[in-house]
Amino acid sequence: MAKGKSAAKPAKASGPAVSPLAPKSYPSLPPLAGVRLSTGAAGVRYKDRTDVVLAVLAPGTQVAGVFTKSKTASAPVDWCKANLKAGGARALVVNSGNANAFTGKAGYDGARQIAESTAAVVGCRPSEVFMASTGVIGEPLPANRITKLLGALAETGSAAGWRAAAEAIMTTDTYPKLATASAMIDGKRVTINGIAKGSGMIAPDMATMLSFVFTDANLPASVLQELLAAAVRPSFNAITVDSDTSTSDTLLLFATGKGAHHAAVTKAYDKRLNEFRQRLDAVLLSLALQVVRDGEGAQKLIRIDVSGAESDDAAKHIAMSVANSPLVKTAIAGNDANWGRIVMAVGKSGEAADRDKLKIAFGNQIVAENGARALKYNEAAATKAVKGREVEIAIDIGLGKGKARVWTCDLTHGYIDINGSYRS
Amino acid sequence: MAKGKSAAKPAKASGPAVSPLAPKSYPSLPPLAGVRLSTGAAGVRYKDRTDVVLAVLAPGTQVAGVFTKSKTASAPVDWCKANLKAGGARALVVNSGNANAFTGKAGYDGARQIAESTAAVVGCRPSEVFMASTGVIGEPLPANRITKLLGALAETGSAAGWRAAAEAIMTTDTYPKLATASAMIDGKRVTINGIAKGSGMIAPDMATMLSFVFTDANLPASVLQELLAAAVRPSFNAITVDSDTSTSDTLLLFATGKGAHHAAVTKAYDKRLNEFRQRLDAVLLSLALQVVRDGEGAQKLIRIDVSGAESDDAAKHIAMSVANSPLVKTAIAGNDANWGRIVMAVGKSGEAADRDKLKIAFGNQIVAENGARALKYNEAAATKAVKGREVEIAIDIGLGKGKARVWTCDLTHGYIDINGSYRS
Repeated sequence: MAKGKSAAKPAKASGPAVSPLAPKSYPSLPPLAGVRLSTGAAGVRYKDRTDVVLAVLAPGTQVAGVFTKSKTASAPVDWCKANLKAGGARALVVNSGNANAFTGKAGYDGARQIAESTAAVVGCRPSEVFMASTGVIGEPLPANRITKLLGALAETGSAAGWRAAAEAIMTTDTYPKLATASAMIDGKRVTINGIAKGSGMIAPDMATMLSFVFTDANLPASVLQELLAAAVRPSFNAITVDSDTSTSDTLLLFATGKGAHHAAVTKAYDKRLNEFRQRLDAVLLSLALQVVRDGEGAQKLIRIDVSGAESDDAAKHIAMSVANSPLVKTAIAGNDANWGRIVMAVGKSGEAADRDKLKIAFGNQIVAENGARALKYNEAAATKAVKGREVEIAIDIGLGKGKARVWTCDLTHGYIDINGSYRS
Repeated sequence: MAKGKSAAKPAKASGPAVSPLAPKSYPSLPPLAGVRLSTGAAGVRYKDRTDVVLAVLAPGTQVAGVFTKSKTASAPVDWCKANLKAGGARALVVNSGNANAFTGKAGYDGARQIAESTAAVVGCRPSEVFMASTGVIGEPLPANRITKLLGALAETGSAAGWRAAAEAIMTTDTYPKLATASAMIDGKRVTINGIAKGSGMIAPDMATMLSFVFTDANLPASVLQELLAAAVRPSFNAITVDSDTSTSDTLLLFATGKGAHHAAVTKAYDKRLNEFRQRLDAVLLSLALQVVRDGEGAQKLIRIDVSGAESDDAAKHIAMSVANSPLVKTAIAGNDANWGRIVMAVGKSGEAADRDKLKIAFGNQIVAENGARALKYNEAAATKAVKGREVEIAIDIGLGKGKARVWTCDLTHGYIDINGSYRS
């Protein structure tokens, strides 16, 4: 909490109650050497809650990142991409309430102003400052509300501020998202801590996906980038809430190198990183699933497994066609084991499929095979398989060896309520 | 009405009330030489309403068609595609209540059974019988309920059954869809009559798009096919309700050649067809807009014009990205002039776009330009522009000369109600 702002409470969901799919408890993240966190209430848009996070990173910290593919990306995304090449990072500043997207030159100036102010209080170059903004788009960012807090934030950083940081970056999120793991590298234990926000892959208006992952391992930016690219495919790139892509999606991975000393590792596929890779994947998957579990209006988590496609890419494309189908998502919302809509979504994907080879199951109930309803089809059992909070759909295309797994949530009245109400 | 079935009423929407976007009145379609229509109540799924149409076509009738691109198309689609090459047609049979899709060999057998029975009563080859089915998928089609009516239907056909035919093919439609026009070819007046059904592009479960268009002009199948391919692009291929594509979408164009005698025309771009082309385009556009106006849950018709894209294809792709965005559609539903979501949808399309060149207008209110909110932005005026039943969005990409126009509807609680309830 920034000095002088002790009255500000941590963020609370301003919208509906906590998602029924929320984790039962939140993990307690341990301190991570080389990271000091602080939060403040800048009043960018929200009142009476925190909305800014500053992470001060030890000298020598390395960084990697992946970003939205949007052609209309936000000013902070442009800033981070431009400064990622050098590989060094000394600070991260994140605000909620305003995305600083589609804000033209003023938006870029605001981003630079934040970077320069942060650099001044941290003692680094502006290019070593990374940032993200989430909230409404098209509104000018009141950067000075943020910059005037930075001095106090830099002084009050602590190693224990993970939960507070995860709360300060929430927008339509109904709960904070945190994950932690540890791994051995070269016989030394290192830690991975991550936070995220998002109620979808989705949307500029209060629902961007942001995630920041930190480790005290000693890894160069090139290795981090390769690990991140591999870890993001089956996690953040395998979830969808509503097929809409934010202008601001940002995932940054920082390595401070200030944990237990281990030998230098210069290749991502060095076997000494096997466990680390696995744990990093797990942290990203945990955060990604926490995002989809908080999907706007979500009442159910839906896992879709596609096998037997012509290639892994084809399988992913089919899985996403099913996961993004409004008709599939509304059927599941209504406890309707409507496998006909799955057939439709497979068919519309454009990938190779053969009606007569397709096999579809809800849970362990095979509902369709050999070009028709399964002979052993049991409506009651199929309905039971889609009634719970977690629904598993398996689709065997029957043509090849390509496979993919993705997650989505159902499409409910809650989604319409959240997104169809006038901006307040 | 089939003989002995006089108790059956025409179809009525079993779901919600008539769409608020429905036409104020339905056009009265004139008789069309060479087409005799009849409807019957086969009880395929619905009770106490008509659900089968038979159109008997004069000898020499030519046919063209376009179909769903789904890789899991229905048995009737497969049947029509296979028989389209020969170019001749003597009958059309359409049923509602069951789509005969994903029904395997039994489905194909049912389609053939209908074709053979129809051929027997009409006196033609089975390959001259075209057909379409719409309704639930995956359920075996009770073909015999249809075939046993065919004899009576063939005897009772009339030249005046257009409205009854449009009603018999309805599923979740809330009103029948009809359009008519006339044109001069070579100094002779010909007629074009069309009917359609659909509450979206969408979905196997009761919401397939079907359309059947008839003319008494004398045109060969090759010309019809070329005219149809051109006419479908700015009409049926420019509408979307929810991005889901049916396994059964079918559009057939029949020319009986039994109207006023005109000289043979063998090329689609013969200037003697100029007026005919224009009127055919208008009939298809009218029918397509009637479908989107009946979009499931629709409260508003949304027109999206994209200009300044790199190509017409790029413009269409961007326009469809906006039209299919759940966040854009829910915003409009909520009377929210949320242009940030349009920026998002343009950005996610993947087509070339430059934030700083983009211009967006609701009605005649420019809301964004030069990479930021328009200087003259007026929230009240922008809100007013999205409050009505018809909303116009114009997007200038500012890069090239490509343009496209598409239509969609808003995404409302009604869509969730219709699609999220258990199949009854």
